[in-house]
Amino acid sequence: MSANKVLINGEWRNASFEAVFSPFSPQDGKQLTSEYPVSNWADCDDALNAAIKAHQALSCVSRQTIAKFLDGYANRITASCDRLVELAHQETGLAKSPRLADVEIPRTVSQIKLAAEAARTASWSQPIIDSTSNIRSMLQSIGPVAVFGPNNFPFAFGSISGSDFASAIAAGNPVIAKAHPSHPGTTKLFAELAQQAAEECELPKGTVQLIYAMSNDSGLKLVSDPRIAATGFTGSRPAGLALKKAAEDAGKLIYLELSSLNPVFVLQGALQERLVQIADEYVISCTMAAGQLCTKPGLIIVPKGDKGDQFVSMVKDKFESGPVAPLLSEGAAKNIKTIADKIMSAGATLLTSNTNEHSGFRCNNTLLSINGSDFLRNSEIFQLEMFGNASLIIRSGSTEESQCIIANLEGNLTGCFYTDTNGSDDDEYQQLEPFLRPKVGRIINDKMPTGVAVSLAMNHGGPFPASGHPGFTAVGMPSSIKRFSALKCFDNVRENRLPDVLANKNPSPHTWRQIDGKWTTEDVSN
Amino acid sequence: MSANKVLINGEWRNASFEAVFSPFSPQDGKQLTSEYPVSNWADCDDALNAAIKAHQALSCVSRQTIAKFLDGYANRITASCDRLVELAHQETGLAKSPRLADVEIPRTVSQIKLAAEAARTASWSQPIIDSTSNIRSMLQSIGPVAVFGPNNFPFAFGSISGSDFASAIAAGNPVIAKAHPSHPGTTKLFAELAQQAAEECELPKGTVQLIYAMSNDSGLKLVSDPRIAATGFTGSRPAGLALKKAAEDAGKLIYLELSSLNPVFVLQGALQERLVQIADEYVISCTMAAGQLCTKPGLIIVPKGDKGDQFVSMVKDKFESGPVAPLLSEGAAKNIKTIADKIMSAGATLLTSNTNEHSGFRCNNTLLSINGSDFLRNSEIFQLEMFGNASLIIRSGSTEESQCIIANLEGNLTGCFYTDTNGSDDDEYQQLEPFLRPKVGRIINDKMPTGVAVSLAMNHGGPFPASGHPGFTAVGMPSSIKRFSALKCFDNVRENRLPDVLANKNPSPHTWRQIDGKWTTEDVSN
Repeated sequence: MSANKVLINGEWRNASFEAVFSPFSPQDGKQLTSEYPVSNWADCDDALNAAIKAHQALSCVSRQTIAKFLDGYANRITASCDRLVELAHQETGLAKSPRLADVEIPRTVSQIKLAAEAARTASWSQPIIDSTSNIRSMLQSIGPVAVFGPNNFPFAFGSISGSDFASAIAAGNPVIAKAHPSHPGTTKLFAELAQQAAEECELPKGTVQLIYAMSNDSGLKLVSDPRIAATGFTGSRPAGLALKKAAEDAGKLIYLELSSLNPVFVLQGALQERLVQIADEYVISCTMAAGQLCTKPGLIIVPKGDKGDQFVSMVKDKFESGPVAPLLSEGAAKNIKTIADKIMSAGATLLTSNTNEHSGFRCNNTLLSINGSDFLRNSEIFQLEMFGNASLIIRSGSTEESQCIIANLEGNLTGCFYTDTNGSDDDEYQQLEPFLRPKVGRIINDKMPTGVAVSLAMNHGGPFPASGHPGFTAVGMPSSIKRFSALKCFDNVRENRLPDVLANKNPSPHTWRQIDGKWTTEDVSN
Repeated sequence: MSANKVLINGEWRNASFEAVFSPFSPQDGKQLTSEYPVSNWADCDDALNAAIKAHQALSCVSRQTIAKFLDGYANRITASCDRLVELAHQETGLAKSPRLADVEIPRTVSQIKLAAEAARTASWSQPIIDSTSNIRSMLQSIGPVAVFGPNNFPFAFGSISGSDFASAIAAGNPVIAKAHPSHPGTTKLFAELAQQAAEECELPKGTVQLIYAMSNDSGLKLVSDPRIAATGFTGSRPAGLALKKAAEDAGKLIYLELSSLNPVFVLQGALQERLVQIADEYVISCTMAAGQLCTKPGLIIVPKGDKGDQFVSMVKDKFESGPVAPLLSEGAAKNIKTIADKIMSAGATLLTSNTNEHSGFRCNNTLLSINGSDFLRNSEIFQLEMFGNASLIIRSGSTEESQCIIANLEGNLTGCFYTDTNGSDDDEYQQLEPFLRPKVGRIINDKMPTGVAVSLAMNHGGPFPASGHPGFTAVGMPSSIKRFSALKCFDNVRENRLPDVLANKNPSPHTWRQIDGKWTTEDVSN
């Protein structure tokens, strides 16, 4: 068999494999001709050995060099934008413009450049100095990191181009990237650009490595291997939970971004005030990129009554008449259908009635509805995720019913409230928000949850099962870097032996440190 | 049966129990007469329900009130110092002075007062404001926290008086304390003082709760219950790992402080320069409080050769002639003997030869020795923890051998180097420290690891299996509070709906916030 080469220990080499796979073109559903290896454990083993050596060598590489690598890589991505967009469009069916070329590439490049800036200043490492007792601490690299990227963001969350990758590298860790099998070619191109940038900066061999696929068993073995320090995973709940168990049973860290329904509460006053606008925003959020976004509003809670009915009728029409984008895989379409059937068996009504046949991996926009009281009788089933262009409307009869709905929600990435601008919804907001907040990582007002800004204040995380640890965010530099670090304390350590960031003299005017309880960019005063 | 009452939902009430237990006096090994219940699940269930309500109510309690509670509680501890010391001395055998009265009480009181200060300023919550995109985030309370305290620090790590308790409360979480069965009376007295302080501040019922003991099954059920948010556990590795698995399989957080050997490397120059001083420090660190400290040096790496021989001979004499303090339980003494036997079977030599019979739970100070090459052949066995007045000397033949020893070490809380003052050890330090650092949470120079300062820069944590997550510290205000919090983001949330700490106006001149990348105590400029 012939297949694309894997990137291990700084070299593109033939994989050790027994099977190959080829991705599909979601636009027409046809299989592409390029073949990629499903690596045997031998490849993982070699990558792990190389990563251990790379991590040791990285401890002698300056933060400036790591920053230079990230900047150089970002520039190469910009320069190869057209090829990346073409390939990703072919493999994922996502629109070239605006999505891939005008949104995701700039976001990816900006994220990597912010990671470079973070590596340069080291402010992300939160240096803390207790000058009286001469105890100093900071976050430092943790060791080899495995990154499992998702199918839906081939660039910004890609295993060798996204936030997990940039975060792990910025902290000084080597990355073993596991491509998502829906876009191996795109991932390979990123790995080529990354490896070129790594060579240019003379980073240790094995700082960036790429394996396309492996058996489930090898995946479990990888995340729990003694040589791995942590894993970043974005994807489905079953796969994520299996990896979580394997990793944690071995005492290994794993950061997960799993399913989320992102409930949106539209309060009565908001409906009165701007029904059409909210309906538009909701429908776009559910159907853009075929709704394949981790923060797609999978649940919307709409009051019973005339205005609510009007809203439902309007969004139903828009779902039916709106464009139908391709899903990322054949399985994705089947999954929506299977879960919609389960939800209907449990009592939900299918509102949309399209039965159009589509080319490729398309599935009609799907909208369902359920009464609040029926939702409450079987809330687990109604929280099964339809990852794609489908959503469930819950009709709530009262604030109390909405409180009960919230009480039955699982952990989510986001929770959103639409309220009117003149305060008539404020009472209800105050009665709902304190219950919703503990269930979500991000509370949003008056806009849909899709569109996760790369902001230093962002939280793209949340209570289990939205993520594995509610204290960390997967998006937002430099906060997301913290996941791939360990707290290191230097107690009575002589100054010439300290990391430069913890020395009395601040190595940079841009490095924030907490000295004796005060955040400052100054030196330690003697 | 009659037994002491448990504290559930704000009331001291009869426990639901089927068995009782009585603690022992380690000084003479006699069982005390007071009886404490081993609670049935019904007690845990009631406590969990009360904790959920308390957490909801706490969200409306001001940070100032929580701070007032912690201060009031600390003052009550100071006022009841004599009773606490008397009771703890009886139940643990730890010396009244200086240990309990002059070290542990002040440390405990200071720690709780620092937690009060942290609650007041909220700087621990790391408010981050992105004013351009109006995205703001901070750490907030997480929900009901279970705390399992250890046997060796009845005050400073106590389940209702220690760092876990103070940290969880400062973040706004209710605590279900599970007493350590070796000192239930001491824990009860703390709970009484805490409850009095809670009532004085009108904290919600169930903010502080106490259960003395429960079956292992109930313990596993408690940490994985849907109503619990996180657990703090300090204790033995087997118990900790069982709880870890139960909690994590249910998607629950658990912070563990488990076993640690705290390797100490004494380099050649340091031996030349101050052999006697280092020997003294080592012996005190191993035998003080019968060595029952999580940071006791359980491993010391000493160079082969004359100076090393002299050091070993001197510490052997000191172990033999030094005082023998009581251990906390009969099991502790047996455990040291069992592990020492295993280590000897694997090739270590017992250096100390005392065969004195002692009263109570005492065990002769025990010192063993092994060649570096023999250690490397069987490094797992030689890393079994002897929790108490026992330690293992490894004789290393070279820097390379020391590197190999490090490569075979498990994760530890601390790692220490003794080096000379004029630089002759610097080369070896540079060859060893980069390998030891990834294995420990705290690198120490020229002092023993015992004595964990409550410093804002402290790290009392480390890589697995020393702790469950290397990014967090169990000691050091306000850092330790972060463990019991969740990141909450407010995206486009109207200003009147924001937590005061995230509003444009800084609620306090002492609250540090990161605004647009800069740490400041100023307001957001408009």
